Amino acid sequence: MFTVDRYTPTRIVFGAGRLKELAEISLPGKKALLCFIGGSNVQRSGLQDKVIDLLQKNEVTAVVYDHITPNPTKKSVMDGAQVALAHQCDFVLGLGGGSSIDAAKAIAVMMKNPGDLWDYGYTGTGGEKLIVGAAPIVAVTTTCGTGTENDQYCVITNEETGEKLDFTADAIFPTVSVIDPELMLTIPRDLTIYQGFDALFHAAECYVTNGHQDRMVDLYAVESVKTVARHLPSVVKDPGDLAARSEMAYAADILSGYTMALISVTSHHILAQALGGYFPKLPHGASLILVCEAYYTKVCSYLPLEFDELGELMGEKRDPKRPGYAFVQALIRLMEETGCRDLAMSSFGIEREDFPRIAKMTVDEVGISMDRYTLTREDMIQILEDSYK
Amino acid sequence: MFTVDRYTPTRIVFGAGRLKELAEISLPGKKALLCFIGGSNVQRSGLQDKVIDLLQKNEVTAVVYDHITPNPTKKSVMDGAQVALAHQCDFVLGLGGGSSIDAAKAIAVMMKNPGDLWDYGYTGTGGEKLIVGAAPIVAVTTTCGTGTENDQYCVITNEETGEKLDFTADAIFPTVSVIDPELMLTIPRDLTIYQGFDALFHAAECYVTNGHQDRMVDLYAVESVKTVARHLPSVVKDPGDLAARSEMAYAADILSGYTMALISVTSHHILAQALGGYFPKLPHGASLILVCEAYYTKVCSYLPLEFDELGELMGEKRDPKRPGYAFVQALIRLMEETGCRDLAMSSFGIEREDFPRIAKMTVDEVGISMDRYTLTREDMIQILEDSYK
Repeated sequence: MFTVDRYTPTRIVFGAGRLKELAEISLPGKKALLCFIGGSNVQRSGLQDKVIDLLQKNEVTAVVYDHITPNPTKKSVMDGAQVALAHQCDFVLGLGGGSSIDAAKAIAVMMKNPGDLWDYGYTGTGGEKLIVGAAPIVAVTTTCGTGTENDQYCVITNEETGEKLDFTADAIFPTVSVIDPELMLTIPRDLTIYQGFDALFHAAECYVTNGHQDRMVDLYAVESVKTVARHLPSVVKDPGDLAARSEMAYAADILSGYTMALISVTSHHILAQALGGYFPKLPHGASLILVCEAYYTKVCSYLPLEFDELGELMGEKRDPKRPGYAFVQALIRLMEETGCRDLAMSSFGIEREDFPRIAKMTVDEVGISMDRYTLTREDMIQILEDSYK
Repeated sequence: MFTVDRYTPTRIVFGAGRLKELAEISLPGKKALLCFIGGSNVQRSGLQDKVIDLLQKNEVTAVVYDHITPNPTKKSVMDGAQVALAHQCDFVLGLGGGSSIDAAKAIAVMMKNPGDLWDYGYTGTGGEKLIVGAAPIVAVTTTCGTGTENDQYCVITNEETGEKLDFTADAIFPTVSVIDPELMLTIPRDLTIYQGFDALFHAAECYVTNGHQDRMVDLYAVESVKTVARHLPSVVKDPGDLAARSEMAYAADILSGYTMALISVTSHHILAQALGGYFPKLPHGASLILVCEAYYTKVCSYLPLEFDELGELMGEKRDPKRPGYAFVQALIRLMEETGCRDLAMSSFGIEREDFPRIAKMTVDEVGISMDRYTLTREDMIQILEDSYK
């Protein structure tokens, strides 16, 4: 018998041109810490000034905090919380991609919880303390992929220990997320592809983990997988196609965000994160693409029903002689259509000798227990070997 | 370009047998006002005691308030708020159908807002004062149809003025809704049919109002319409079919609830409410069924795209000679399959001479402006005439 466990309280304001509604929507206070990556496109494009102006019209003062970095660090979070507390900010506004929004979430946590951020990590060297409350968070997203706009997670890097940990609490669901696809028209081609596949795998992996148990996970995942398969090639072909950008933002930021807020991804994501941990310059979406063909060729026959369904959602036919392989076929086709099937590990500096350590890192991760199949360290090494070019 | 405006913060715990989780889930306080209809099945079946026991295991004390009536009255709400305040209750738990949950919502409002409930009505003789906050609300639903478990509305009757008004505020979204289809196995056959059609029309009407603008309204409405068309006949045939009851609860309490939280229904619902206002013993779902064939025969050609799509979702083919009529055909078939097509106005005491007043009441209602077509008083009279038997 199916179930539904749903809790996604973020208010969503989604649509082309809707950034301007920041001037009128209800916001959780009168003073905001405005977080973004200094020197990034947010600043150069004038978006920063535009947002400050819209907030002003809404009678909200912005305290600028631009010390966020890609893969945001614990230090930037702790410093940001200091600034917010010193200025008595009511809420934190993350402006940009996943890094700015994740940093905003972690800053909001440290505005209401004592001690050090790492006290609240629940893996690695984290102190496993419970997060109790957080300052309200507003997300204004300029990218399309992470889903952090609508979930209760953030990922922060500890520059001392070299770790990258997840933090989670219901209190860090953003209060409001503004998702305006017009802000996404200038996302570079590579990032568009990487984020598109990231959104696809968020939904597809959650679909597999779910195994038809929670009905709403299926509803969101099916819609997301269909939407990405249909519209990613268009947006790669024509980056200025606002309709296709809207579809991709809907899939990535809303639908895939919801599936992740409700259920776990698989070891495909864990393997990709381990790769990213070793090679910090490897974009997350690229690491997913690099291993996907070998990974799903390995696992598709373990859950043929779900994998064939995923392939069919993407327009492939199932082949009774190769159970579950329809999904692999669909991935190959989508990689070819978007010109990323020739992406090579070697071009990111990844060497075969790194595989055992990456495989160990992957199977040691607690989250791997969510898989509905078991992959050993040897399996992971094999997947990496098969992916190598 | 499409949009998404989503805000449905209620935490949902849905699934057969999950009532027992009341003993362990996080609840918004330690003392609850437990509202239900005294002498109803909630009490007779022992559900009341079971819920008190589960709350006790969760360290929550229940203050029983069983003075709720079907079509809950302002007096029962004002009295309930007095009891809750006198006992210093932290939250209100509505146990039962829409009446208990709507009463719980209104009581929660009056625990945090001064004056009289009617001060906060925004139509009729309501004082149009803004509701500021409410005590937290928990819903445990035993029926399947209203969607109040997941929305920001409640409907209360004023026994002095004879009005039935909507009240709304974001603060009255329930904090948690427990939806256990096992509690629905004993819903009588007639009510099963009425609630099933109510859920169908909530979704179908929102789909029509939406006109493909908000993407998530479409997502939820499509899933709900398909689910009701497929499973309502099974549950009418076999009331003890738990799988079919689960499907219907999913459609009614979650999907259709979401569509209504996001967008408005049409004048079909307004007409049915006017009928219900005149004939208080006429069940809401029955009034929808009584007029639906004539209503949609009248309007289907105004929005042929949406109405043909709805018909197709329910398994009908579109007929190019009768644009939009596929939905009417689908309704006729579903009424025949569930044995309610012969439902007659006359058997509820409705007379032809009442039609002008009911039509006037309908077109005078402010909500009618949400229709994407215009129906006059004469149109409404004609629909009522065509429906009469």
